[in-house]
Amino acid sequence: MVNSFDVARLAGVSQSTVSRALRGDSKVSERTRTLVADAAKTLGYVPNLAGRALSSGRTNRIGLLVTDLSNEFYHRLIGPVVDRVDEHQHEVVLLADNQSTSDIPNRIISLGLDGVILATTTTDSVIPYKLREKNIPFVYFNRIAPAVPADAAVIDLTDGMQDLVNAIKRNGYKRVGAILGPKNATTGTLRANIFFELLAQNEIFVPFDYRVNGDFSIPAGLEGFQELMSREVPPDVIFCANDVVAMGAINAAHVYDIKVPEDVALVGFDDLPEAKWPIFSLSTVGFDLEKLAAVAVDLLFERIENPEADFKTVELPSYYVTRKSLP
Amino acid sequence: MVNSFDVARLAGVSQSTVSRALRGDSKVSERTRTLVADAAKTLGYVPNLAGRALSSGRTNRIGLLVTDLSNEFYHRLIGPVVDRVDEHQHEVVLLADNQSTSDIPNRIISLGLDGVILATTTTDSVIPYKLREKNIPFVYFNRIAPAVPADAAVIDLTDGMQDLVNAIKRNGYKRVGAILGPKNATTGTLRANIFFELLAQNEIFVPFDYRVNGDFSIPAGLEGFQELMSREVPPDVIFCANDVVAMGAINAAHVYDIKVPEDVALVGFDDLPEAKWPIFSLSTVGFDLEKLAAVAVDLLFERIENPEADFKTVELPSYYVTRKSLP
Repeated sequence: MVNSFDVARLAGVSQSTVSRALRGDSKVSERTRTLVADAAKTLGYVPNLAGRALSSGRTNRIGLLVTDLSNEFYHRLIGPVVDRVDEHQHEVVLLADNQSTSDIPNRIISLGLDGVILATTTTDSVIPYKLREKNIPFVYFNRIAPAVPADAAVIDLTDGMQDLVNAIKRNGYKRVGAILGPKNATTGTLRANIFFELLAQNEIFVPFDYRVNGDFSIPAGLEGFQELMSREVPPDVIFCANDVVAMGAINAAHVYDIKVPEDVALVGFDDLPEAKWPIFSLSTVGFDLEKLAAVAVDLLFERIENPEADFKTVELPSYYVTRKSLP
Repeated sequence: MVNSFDVARLAGVSQSTVSRALRGDSKVSERTRTLVADAAKTLGYVPNLAGRALSSGRTNRIGLLVTDLSNEFYHRLIGPVVDRVDEHQHEVVLLADNQSTSDIPNRIISLGLDGVILATTTTDSVIPYKLREKNIPFVYFNRIAPAVPADAAVIDLTDGMQDLVNAIKRNGYKRVGAILGPKNATTGTLRANIFFELLAQNEIFVPFDYRVNGDFSIPAGLEGFQELMSREVPPDVIFCANDVVAMGAINAAHVYDIKVPEDVALVGFDDLPEAKWPIFSLSTVGFDLEKLAAVAVDLLFERIENPEADFKTVELPSYYVTRKSLP
């Protein structure tokens, strides 16, 4: 079996230079890197990353922690995260909060991950505390838990929400309903609060019996829609906690033959690829999910390189996109 | 920092017994395992898996190789695979064939994965050769590449396809169209061949201009549907390579105001959760995806334990489910 000493001999450099060149150490010159790469290629040498983990104390693995792997939002997040981590020549280990068999904080610790992207939705999680205690770098994705400060990639909701409220006013809707996320999810409550506040500035108020809570899933949208539309006077527009919930609501409308937007308008959040599907044609407040994923991954790698740097929050803008569900 | 020697002292066993007990070695008695687990818990000891990888030569990581992380089929596969691998106390590293920056076979090798689930769709891949050459255990998911024999978890198409053909006969459809997968995908061609053969036994033939090829995606369904429905005499039923393609077709029907099933019936394959959504209500040939994922994972772990055992193919049955798109 070819090893790094063989590569060093052929390239005419030391073994430690081979090792540094192959892991992309920036102190190795471009010329040396090419020499080493050519020698490795000629000999068919493939570096052993487990061995590398030993010598560097790093594993080249990043954890992505999500709430639920069956949820359509997370499906759309995984690809962009894997792509960006791949550009950093690391791998993604997938972890789900709802795995019943696992003690997630201890598993993350025992895996020796180089860092973790926290894309779970709940604020009452013990995970950030545990990771900080063990000095494991992490970044918040699309949320902040104020109790444990850390780097964060988040959305500035102002632009998108303001344009949504303008659209509601323009259409003359008077009865605004909302299918909100779980009460312990920052992402959802933050969205709802800004939305309600901007509405209030326009003298539009959302009564409590026009608000229902669910869990960001298709069934939550189905049930929330049914519930709101069974009020004696149903809403004329429904704000959904995210696009997945809105997709559930449109399915319910289909079942009960309620016309969207003629009988009730619907709006989501996230601008997932599904929102563009003609069958949904969902108006929604969106953001650049691929970019947010890339920002989160990059923040995490900066943190790994500079553990002592000040924490950074990077905000991406939101936008409102008009489709058929809210004209 | 607490280490395994501290745990050994408290449990009254040797350090190597602690190590074996914590990695689930079956030669350690249930009583000793409990003793060690209690001691580890009392001391707050978390084993270091990177260190374990050293001593055992194993990394506790399984690769899942998919074609494309943006594809809805793979979204539904990831959760069940992660869940089952989690039950084996291993982690999943996600790899996508279409990652442009990566040389997948060499990456798999350099990652030192304990094994790989090959869920890619193409038959012309060099990956199985490379893995075999390097003695890395792997299992085929939902496909077989005859050139490199290996364990496989596959679907027996007979029952589902026969019932689909019966449904086509029962409805009296005469003009059967098909939006097929890529020509180099075994999964798609196998499905198509069995379908065409069973139809032929019933004197129903699918002319070549009623067959189009796509890539198992929503756009492939949109385009394939448009193309078939623009024939001078369009088909009265369309078989889609999978549910994702069928979802694309239903979206196209929505755009062109073509009624499903009144103007044309549609049928998919996979029985994804989306097929049940009222807005699609897709008749489809399905199988137990969670179970197939579990079978593949279990086969892989058997292979890891017994590298020399004969190769096994486990077949799960298929079924046909009638929904509104093909009554």
